[in-house]
Amino acid sequence: MNPIDIIKKKRDGENISNTEIEWFIEGYVNGEIPDYQVSAWLMASYINGLDIKETHALTNAIINSGDTIDLSSVEGIKVDKHSTGGVGDAVTLVLGPIVASCNVPFVKMSGRGLGHTGGTLDKLSSIKGLRLDLTSNEIIKQAKDIGIVICGQTGEIAPADKLLYSLRDVTATVNSMPLIAASIMGKKIAMGSDAILLDIKVGNGAFMKTLKEAQELGKTMVDIGKASGIKTIAILTDMEQPLGMSIGNSLEVIEAIDILNGEGNEALRELCLFFAAKTVEIAKPEMSYKEAYLLAKTNLDNGKALKKFREFIRYQGGDDSIIDNLSKLELSKIKCEVYANKSGYLSQNNALLIGQAAFSLGAGRLKKEDNIDLGAGIIIYKRVGDYINEGDLLATLYSDDENKISEGKKLFLSAISIDSNKFDKRSLIIDIISDEKSHD
Amino acid sequence: MNPIDIIKKKRDGENISNTEIEWFIEGYVNGEIPDYQVSAWLMASYINGLDIKETHALTNAIINSGDTIDLSSVEGIKVDKHSTGGVGDAVTLVLGPIVASCNVPFVKMSGRGLGHTGGTLDKLSSIKGLRLDLTSNEIIKQAKDIGIVICGQTGEIAPADKLLYSLRDVTATVNSMPLIAASIMGKKIAMGSDAILLDIKVGNGAFMKTLKEAQELGKTMVDIGKASGIKTIAILTDMEQPLGMSIGNSLEVIEAIDILNGEGNEALRELCLFFAAKTVEIAKPEMSYKEAYLLAKTNLDNGKALKKFREFIRYQGGDDSIIDNLSKLELSKIKCEVYANKSGYLSQNNALLIGQAAFSLGAGRLKKEDNIDLGAGIIIYKRVGDYINEGDLLATLYSDDENKISEGKKLFLSAISIDSNKFDKRSLIIDIISDEKSHD
Repeated sequence: MNPIDIIKKKRDGENISNTEIEWFIEGYVNGEIPDYQVSAWLMASYINGLDIKETHALTNAIINSGDTIDLSSVEGIKVDKHSTGGVGDAVTLVLGPIVASCNVPFVKMSGRGLGHTGGTLDKLSSIKGLRLDLTSNEIIKQAKDIGIVICGQTGEIAPADKLLYSLRDVTATVNSMPLIAASIMGKKIAMGSDAILLDIKVGNGAFMKTLKEAQELGKTMVDIGKASGIKTIAILTDMEQPLGMSIGNSLEVIEAIDILNGEGNEALRELCLFFAAKTVEIAKPEMSYKEAYLLAKTNLDNGKALKKFREFIRYQGGDDSIIDNLSKLELSKIKCEVYANKSGYLSQNNALLIGQAAFSLGAGRLKKEDNIDLGAGIIIYKRVGDYINEGDLLATLYSDDENKISEGKKLFLSAISIDSNKFDKRSLIIDIISDEKSHD
Repeated sequence: MNPIDIIKKKRDGENISNTEIEWFIEGYVNGEIPDYQVSAWLMASYINGLDIKETHALTNAIINSGDTIDLSSVEGIKVDKHSTGGVGDAVTLVLGPIVASCNVPFVKMSGRGLGHTGGTLDKLSSIKGLRLDLTSNEIIKQAKDIGIVICGQTGEIAPADKLLYSLRDVTATVNSMPLIAASIMGKKIAMGSDAILLDIKVGNGAFMKTLKEAQELGKTMVDIGKASGIKTIAILTDMEQPLGMSIGNSLEVIEAIDILNGEGNEALRELCLFFAAKTVEIAKPEMSYKEAYLLAKTNLDNGKALKKFREFIRYQGGDDSIIDNLSKLELSKIKCEVYANKSGYLSQNNALLIGQAAFSLGAGRLKKEDNIDLGAGIIIYKRVGDYINEGDLLATLYSDDENKISEGKKLFLSAISIDSNKFDKRSLIIDIISDEKSHD
């Protein structure tokens, strides 16, 4: 085989065989195929596309490029969850405990986030003592013992993806459905789960700006999952406004605990229950969606899910007293309340700009090396369609720096619009793509 | 400016500005833009194309990346010639002397060839003592003194092209009309001529396999020439069979001298006269094509062109006694004659396979470092459409190795077909593309 022939085929819109893709990616990881050949191939793939067979082969090549985790000794259908990244998204921290409390093992390896706010690992870092770097053996034991693990990547999972992503980032080949799908699914499948719930955000605050793109990505990932024997469901959620009411790291942990406590925002609570029911339905084929929903809701209402979250924190060495005393989750010292200067309906709650506001308050990072202020962020009190009276509290901003507060406030104000016309509330769930219901 | 934005534009089929192209290529040559970004851009340009404005900007960026030669102190319209490379093409060695004998300065910098046979420099290397590495000042002085210079590249002409070509070679982005056109025209224009005659080969033995491709390339180059104020004419010639009757290095010098002596193959002679007349017509707008042709023919017939060739050899330090004693041009020691085993019309004289035969005899090189056997090659005696009697001499093969002879003979025999049906002779000239006659 010859890298030039493989590039040529993709350049001319022809298909590449499984063997060719496997060989090409292996050669890249080994340093035998140089990055300038891979970037030419990435651009050809970006423009001419990869079909599902090629995308599946690329996914396998990514999986095979590094370590994989074998969860087969853990009983039951192990589920994992992936979000394409949005603003104010604490769902994992609610979903994991509910699902685990329904006896469905929830095993998720997360990354640290780049962008507006941190990733799940950053959020969990606000819980003192919580260990996030677990070995494969620790992950397997914990999954068996308590049915829930949320930790950082262990070993060298999918090194090909790391290399490919860095190269895509500097060659304008990031935003390609098959390349994104293979990247996400390759990493996830390497982590050993049997089922994957994908939360694909759509809207200004998301990577996928249009419904069509998000559907295409969802469909591609569900197809890869099918080809790999992994039960996969993709749920498209709205990212025109933040998913929850809190944007930040400590702030989102607090919001998650509120919901596990039976409090918190109703829409986010319902979204978490829907995700949980869908997950349980996949993992327990004997259950209908209705039964799964009922089980999830019962365990949220009776405190079993919160108990599972406590078990999780303790097992990973964290201080679970935060659950009883949320003020132990530190917030930044400067607090700024923002009030409405007119009455009307909230017509815009721009997720992208609110994310940028949270970033400017210190809640996010641009580069891996950057520090995150875990206590920084925003609590919002209104959602699109809510009626607002002049003088209503719109948001509370947290930061450790007055300049950041003033920058954050400016961005937050640019994110919202109040209109005299009535505005419909937006549904959080936009579409569901699974093997049964596919968008051809 | 940002390389990613430039890649993105081309990826999405948008146009890039002159400034952006200039900046991108300059950054590449300076080592500020890495090859993996350039290769992604090359692939995007390959697939989505460059329009004439972009191609012209790329040509300028290539010119500006290195040294240029200023021939303005040489009187008259200085002409250069470029061939896209074919089999059995000694045209430069006949054309240059004819044109110079018509008082049109002929200044050509050539490369060493890769492929079936050597380039013009390799052919000239078979003339003992001939210096091919001249300085800019030597080139200018010689052009003033005798009106003809054929030498290697001096200084660092178009380093961007060298870098881009190496990268295209390994990223499957060679065969793109705008990239080829900018590469050729960039190098040629940097060499300071006022007019360029392009010989674009079409057919199995050429880089351009189809008439459409060759016309597109010719049109693009003529357009770049026009935009750069360089008179440019592209002549498409047939490369389904070798252009001349000799394929090799010493062998082609002998064929060129034969023609300058008023002998040699009639078709090749006519082609050289046509090229010469077209060149003189461009350089001397006061002359009609007919007058230019008459002048060229007169100077070929009366020996002025041959005299010019002698002057050229002497001026560059070569042994001009070869003209009087062609046996001084050494041929390889083993000679093999190939005879027809049946009668009929020659229906195929496959240029590609005959080129490969010459290569296997030792006449070409694959890599710059490879040695060429200057005395190796093939003389053919028949052209497509000729009637052949069983037992007629078809070719003489030269090599220094019996194994190469047997391999070369096998390839030569696979190149020809003798058919009982009458076959039309093929015209050498297929099309002419100039500013006046363009193919839109």
